[in-house]
Amino acid sequence: MADYRELWESLDMDLEKHDELCQVLPEFYGDIYMTQEKRPEGMNYFNFVISEIHGLRIKELNEHRKNGKKVFGSFCVFVPDEVILAADGIGVGLCGGSEFWVPDGEKVLPRNMCPLIKASVGAKISGTCPYFQSADMLVGETTCDGKKKAWEILEDYIPMHVMDLPQMKREKDKENFKDEIKIFKEKVEEVTGNKVSAESLKETIKLVNNKRKTLQRLYNTRKAENLPISGKDALLITQVAFYDDTNRFIDKVNELCDELENRIEEKVSVFKEGTPRILLTGTPMAIPNWKMHHLIETSGGAVVCEEACTGTKYFERLVDEDNEDLDSQLRALSERYMGINCACFSPNDGRIDDIIRLYKEYNADGVIYNSLPFCHTYAIEYKKVKDALEKEGIPVIMIETDYSLQDAGQINTRLEAFFEMINMNKELAI
Amino acid sequence: MADYRELWESLDMDLEKHDELCQVLPEFYGDIYMTQEKRPEGMNYFNFVISEIHGLRIKELNEHRKNGKKVFGSFCVFVPDEVILAADGIGVGLCGGSEFWVPDGEKVLPRNMCPLIKASVGAKISGTCPYFQSADMLVGETTCDGKKKAWEILEDYIPMHVMDLPQMKREKDKENFKDEIKIFKEKVEEVTGNKVSAESLKETIKLVNNKRKTLQRLYNTRKAENLPISGKDALLITQVAFYDDTNRFIDKVNELCDELENRIEEKVSVFKEGTPRILLTGTPMAIPNWKMHHLIETSGGAVVCEEACTGTKYFERLVDEDNEDLDSQLRALSERYMGINCACFSPNDGRIDDIIRLYKEYNADGVIYNSLPFCHTYAIEYKKVKDALEKEGIPVIMIETDYSLQDAGQINTRLEAFFEMINMNKELAI
Ligand code: SF4
Ligand code: SF4
Ligand code: SF4
Ligand code: SF4
Repeated sequence: MADYRELWESLDMDLEKHDELCQVLPEFYGDIYMTQEKRPEGMNYFNFVISEIHGLRIKELNEHRKNGKKVFGSFCVFVPDEVILAADGIGVGLCGGSEFWVPDGEKVLPRNMCPLIKASVGAKISGTCPYFQSADMLVGETTCDGKKKAWEILEDYIPMHVMDLPQMKREKDKENFKDEIKIFKEKVEEVTGNKVSAESLKETIKLVNNKRKTLQRLYNTRKAENLPISGKDALLITQVAFYDDTNRFIDKVNELCDELENRIEEKVSVFKEGTPRILLTGTPMAIPNWKMHHLIETSGGAVVCEEACTGTKYFERLVDEDNEDLDSQLRALSERYMGINCACFSPNDGRIDDIIRLYKEYNADGVIYNSLPFCHTYAIEYKKVKDALEKEGIPVIMIETDYSLQDAGQINTRLEAFFEMINMNKELAI
Repeated sequence: MADYRELWESLDMDLEKHDELCQVLPEFYGDIYMTQEKRPEGMNYFNFVISEIHGLRIKELNEHRKNGKKVFGSFCVFVPDEVILAADGIGVGLCGGSEFWVPDGEKVLPRNMCPLIKASVGAKISGTCPYFQSADMLVGETTCDGKKKAWEILEDYIPMHVMDLPQMKREKDKENFKDEIKIFKEKVEEVTGNKVSAESLKETIKLVNNKRKTLQRLYNTRKAENLPISGKDALLITQVAFYDDTNRFIDKVNELCDELENRIEEKVSVFKEGTPRILLTGTPMAIPNWKMHHLIETSGGAVVCEEACTGTKYFERLVDEDNEDLDSQLRALSERYMGINCACFSPNDGRIDDIIRLYKEYNADGVIYNSLPFCHTYAIEYKKVKDALEKEGIPVIMIETDYSLQDAGQINTRLEAFFEMINMNKELAI
């Protein structure tokens, strides 16, 4: 890796503490990713991205900023990237997925909170994440209690803009969220100094849709009987989507998809025949949180789809591209974003439909409901999901776990029992 | 107590389980309330209300319903009683304050949730609370994650209406909440079969304002140097306000206030001189949750004010009475309700101003920040409140506790240390 110390210093980072992080990450990644067999060639780009995770992309953001342009950090798939890009800004997803940042988060937040929030806040206040340090503004939302209150703490460290997400999905709420997007657009215009025109927005709506279509193409390859890519690798790609350059990302994923589609024709699979196919549903898995995928895929299962924000919630449903004026474009954006079935809505029955549909589309054998601890919305919603899945005869288990690896053995045991049950069911069905 | 078994049976209650509750409550109340010395005469009414808590008032609700009228249950001070009353309905506050209902709540909700929500849901699904059984409809709101998702569970047991509370307090949000009140009004009209007219609403706005003024009169007596009433008794009155008949309640509290104002003139105090005066702030204390007050007032302190929904949030700020048309009335209601400084808003700096103001108004010596476990919003907000109070030199401690009495000893120790510190500060100041 090139020497980025000067760059990091210019970002006001805590270099000593950051060194600690840099020491553990490559080994962690190696253990989880490089041990996989028959990985697609196209994953080399993503290995490279990770090896340069605090380097090359940070340099790009830095050059972008040197040219007077702005970087916006966000924590939720409800923040419309299209608007940021249309003002010549760059959006980066900043959710914290590492245990490393949790203790710093706990300095200002209660301990019994979702680790994603603690890690995100900890990453900022410890000054050890160059993405946070590269952001000119953070964009929050009022999705869950933990996040909506955490913004008030982060505000002491960096300029914040908060979008108020309606908690229901009526017509009125879609109009309200349109207004929120408009307010956000005005804020982005103010910060960047660039006007968002109908023309530029039309272009970025198309661009972000293309990114979505590319990810859909990738996910489609996971519907095949022989799986050309592991769930772990697919997750990594989705995670990288949150901060990589959009055009480059589209190209690289498309290249990979060519390879994967070939594999499908040639019946190359990265898993042995009969491996239970798992639909994973629940809270987001922020980089470098690869825990559940790793546990599943080393306990005899294969993840074929993620019904999560680091998954289908991120790319399903496109924004209508056929609008020529800002007002209709903003409405179209609201329509698309308000179509996301996050547990923060009440009610959120669309998610149940999504889970059942994805289960069928991806030929899954079982559903694992994954939730970060202290995430009330996803934890409470489990009951309704479970009842609905049981009605459909779909096997499901709930696994609540944070970023630490202490419970790995216990989860392994539960997973093995779950897969065994699935295999027995399959045999009985023959 | 009269025999209400037939009435309870008609409400489809679990009588056997309810008997268990009836057996413990009188003793519990006796231990906490009847042991107090020099209680005002006027508290006799409230003793009576409690002794008849599942009897007389339930009978009244029952008669009201026999006349074709409706009862609405709610869980939050954002639900406008004025609207219910204007359609000739009765509103009752239903928050569960007893450990008794928690295990039933845990049958359908995750365990690591706020006991208020678990108890509320448990009270309904166990069929042991006659108020729940008397409600024709429950009214929820999207204030916190736990509640907004719990409505989806309760919906299986009883008709629900949910109001979407904006999570911020801009002009736009006040307009939105006005719309929500309008939608609620239409729902109330549908359920009751009665139209809400500008005339009837004008009347009920006045009525509910009068209730607020009466409670303010009560609380004003607690500003006196010699405290004519204990915090425990004042809390009880506020709790009863949530379900008693409004007119009778106003009369009884005013009678009590005459007595208390006399006491102030005659320098009668229920606490000995120099008792540390405590402002309690935080999550609601639903009946029969008298735990913190009891612990404080048996550890050497006196509660002089509650900055809570069972306290000032319930009655401070009046609705403007000078509007003649529905639209302006709804707007006035929104203004008043959106003035409540609940931690569910982001940001919620008005609460800090309230706490400091109340601390001064009630001549308090210290602040106890009380939070139910797993209440993210109040727990996170503590940091900002603490920082602000420390800047003002106001002593503050945070006590997080649920309904069980297991931690009573430990809390006692903390309280005694806190009061000692306050007393030392006072001596130093002389
Ligand atoms: S789970 Fe909900 S709140 Fe969290 S990132 Fe996804 S959409 Fe946003
Ligand atoms: S996982 Fe749950 S608690 Fe954590 S940020 Fe997302 S919605 Fe909030
Ligand atoms: S604390 Fe907030 S959510 Fe709870 S009852 Fe009060 S206003 Fe409602
Ligand atoms: S105490 Fe907190 S978690 Fe419980 S209902 Fe009120 S706002 Fe929600």
